[in-house]
Amino acid sequence: MLNKNYYELLSTHFPAWTKLTKTQQQIIIDNATLISIDKNALIQNTQAGCSGVLIIKEGTLRVYTLSEQGKEITLYRLNAGDICILSASCVIKDITFDIYIDTLTKCELIQILPCAFSRVMQENIYLEALTYKLATQRLCTVTWAMQQMIFTSFDRRLAEFLLNESHTINSDTINMTHEQIAKLMGTAREVVTRMLKYFSTEGYVELMRGKVKILNKKALEKL
Amino acid sequence: MLNKNYYELLSTHFPAWTKLTKTQQQIIIDNATLISIDKNALIQNTQAGCSGVLIIKEGTLRVYTLSEQGKEITLYRLNAGDICILSASCVIKDITFDIYIDTLTKCELIQILPCAFSRVMQENIYLEALTYKLATQRLCTVTWAMQQMIFTSFDRRLAEFLLNESHTINSDTINMTHEQIAKLMGTAREVVTRMLKYFSTEGYVELMRGKVKILNKKALEKL
Repeated sequence: MLNKNYYELLSTHFPAWTKLTKTQQQIIIDNATLISIDKNALIQNTQAGCSGVLIIKEGTLRVYTLSEQGKEITLYRLNAGDICILSASCVIKDITFDIYIDTLTKCELIQILPCAFSRVMQENIYLEALTYKLATQRLCTVTWAMQQMIFTSFDRRLAEFLLNESHTINSDTINMTHEQIAKLMGTAREVVTRMLKYFSTEGYVELMRGKVKILNKKALEKL
Repeated sequence: MLNKNYYELLSTHFPAWTKLTKTQQQIIIDNATLISIDKNALIQNTQAGCSGVLIIKEGTLRVYTLSEQGKEITLYRLNAGDICILSASCVIKDITFDIYIDTLTKCELIQILPCAFSRVMQENIYLEALTYKLATQRLCTVTWAMQQMIFTSFDRRLAEFLLNESHTINSDTINMTHEQIAKLMGTAREVVTRMLKYFSTEGYVELMRGKVKILNKKALEKL
């Protein structure tokens, strides 16, 4: 029995959906559950095992890791329409590092059981490509975030730069492109763009065309 | 003109080769170069840009990153038959973190130009799936290595454990399975296995069935 509700949800939120055969779609539907989760709930920790593939229908998830001192380090956030793939460590066997996922808001998630997902992925090259492409994208963000936060402390340097600039021009809005900031800081534009994006998702700054507006001076000073 | 030499090399070393059309194979061959590189040569750094996809015919590459203090941190090694995919940051656009690659021995590499590789990858879902699968595997190793080395200092803890154990039994060979070590250290077997594998590639220990032999006590003590 094809559940029309799931069918519509999955065909909307699942990029490779039309590349699946009817049978494969049915396997996914039969193994999908719609779950509601409260704000600030832990969805995944190291001990909990594999949560499967999660499609976010509503709300925001946060993926984070812990430092040796137990400090939470946000790696990225996922919003409505995003697919959480690093929660499926039994689908992607190479995931052996520690990852934590919690809800930042009340969430509605479509959870696809890992065994069913794996089975279809083995049969369907499009789903395999999609899964590994998503995983690559998330892992690049993870690697980047770890490298920035831990190795180069670029977050601190950029916060310092923005605060100094704001102090010099006596305004919260800094009229500079990412390119110009990168040049002045002696780094690549991509690095500046990604860190500003991180600052923006954390609510520290607002990004506009050719401008950066500081929203939370205290948070930047804290860095 | 199909170069028979490249054709044989690529069909041996390239897992998705038979899934490419004749035209796609020809595009790859036309854009592949066999290069010889001396020992201890830097192949890729942040400034050098994209080196393309590298297939290792002979020799060993090392992929590493630098700590804030400029300390080199080995992420993984690649040997004959392996494909180096994280060197192709213009094929996988999400790679914006700093990665360095050098040669540990004299190397023979097949270098595939990124533009040609990207073109075939966009046309061929099998090559796309292979590329992202490889990238996912490497990035999981990278994430794991960063997390172990930086966050949890598990390398130090394991080194301490092995040295203590060796001292207690007055022998360099510790008769314990990874499972037993993991239980005693209060961690997961996978974590122990991966770190021991890392120790072994660094020449610190030799791994045998149910045994760990310490080869380089000084290196472990240094950790």
